[in-house]
Amino acid sequence: MRIDVISQYAKLTDNQLASCTSIVVDLLRASTTIIYAIKNGASQIIPASDPGDAVTLSSRLGGRDCVLCGERGGLKLPGFELGNSPLEYTPEIVKGKTVILSTTNGTLAIQSVRSSATMLIGALVNCTAVAKAAIQAGNDVVIQCAGTEGQFSADDAVAAGAIVDTLQKNLGAAPTLNDLAFCSRMLYQDYLDGRLDVSRTFHYGRLVELGFNQDVELCFQRDTTDVVPVYRNGVIVAK
Amino acid sequence: MRIDVISQYAKLTDNQLASCTSIVVDLLRASTTIIYAIKNGASQIIPASDPGDAVTLSSRLGGRDCVLCGERGGLKLPGFELGNSPLEYTPEIVKGKTVILSTTNGTLAIQSVRSSATMLIGALVNCTAVAKAAIQAGNDVVIQCAGTEGQFSADDAVAAGAIVDTLQKNLGAAPTLNDLAFCSRMLYQDYLDGRLDVSRTFHYGRLVELGFNQDVELCFQRDTTDVVPVYRNGVIVAK
Repeated sequence: MRIDVISQYAKLTDNQLASCTSIVVDLLRASTTIIYAIKNGASQIIPASDPGDAVTLSSRLGGRDCVLCGERGGLKLPGFELGNSPLEYTPEIVKGKTVILSTTNGTLAIQSVRSSATMLIGALVNCTAVAKAAIQAGNDVVIQCAGTEGQFSADDAVAAGAIVDTLQKNLGAAPTLNDLAFCSRMLYQDYLDGRLDVSRTFHYGRLVELGFNQDVELCFQRDTTDVVPVYRNGVIVAK
Repeated sequence: MRIDVISQYAKLTDNQLASCTSIVVDLLRASTTIIYAIKNGASQIIPASDPGDAVTLSSRLGGRDCVLCGERGGLKLPGFELGNSPLEYTPEIVKGKTVILSTTNGTLAIQSVRSSATMLIGALVNCTAVAKAAIQAGNDVVIQCAGTEGQFSADDAVAAGAIVDTLQKNLGAAPTLNDLAFCSRMLYQDYLDGRLDVSRTFHYGRLVELGFNQDVELCFQRDTTDVVPVYRNGVIVAK
């Protein structure tokens, strides 16, 4: 098996993706939020790149069964019911509902790999479950990091590294890693060993400044759920 | 001071670069080769993105004072005098000459930051000297990694991390690092501690397969020279 970790701005072609399982990682916070929404009973999540599209879709589907969610710059969009905090997606609000979600980086990352044979949503909270689902799919794996505003994001690299690590430990034969997969796994080990202080990285710091300490803590928990969201025909559902 | 490490595919705008000192890093091997050519007496180096342009330029300048150099896929271009091995650039061949150089990744990286206020060439062999030259210039620093075929390359990250580390140790106030600068420094420390085995990374492995073991060894030596090449008006000269 081949495992490539890719930054948002290094896009693969549809042809390269067609035989791959992609795992979209936007640790802070879209991936973690999507996993928690599905875990707490959302029937489906529709990613919308543009807030305007999200509003249009919500009014077309009828408000009662929909929850309109999204953020820009970390903050809830005006008039939207929920922002991008996994803690907001409680069973009381999302159970049985269609979540329409527009986020700064996560939605773009999902769209950039939508031509993959299989597309999963991964984070630290489901890193073992998502790695096992990818092994089950049997294809080469592309871990697509969302990044932050088009730049490499350390939090995504740590989460990607956790998934690479779990894949390696659960595969019979040693996989071939691209350099970013190799280095992400190293950074994940640095994080586990307390050498890499994620609180000093950009996106983490910005969310703490905005008061999202609890979110960041939750996003850095590992293996709290077996839920693996999968993107299929334009919507994200439980695998 | 702000220090950004940037991958080849995450290009900055001319406007962002105009007030920066850029350091171009293509560890394996263009940066190291350029530093050795200048160290061994080349009067100037003209980077040419296209091999055809290199040939045209060489014939226009007249062969006697020029050395036509370049590679694609690690191997010397047919009809060219030298490839991209720093060991080939001996004083006997390059002293007093104009080197015209076309390489796969390095030349593109140089062109992507040519609008910087100051543009230097960095590698491990001059990491302390290039960091000190950047501090002297006094601007924010952008370390532009060439990458390998548009992808993140671990060797460039280690070299960028060495430069970030030297900058940090020689600056009065702690600089602001972007996430890739922060992680590159971590990877450099992993490399120094023997945790990160660079021989398992892609570009390193390919050069060893092609028989360039001595080149790779030389490129990973640190601070063997104080030479800092600078790009100015289309040519690279000694600072």
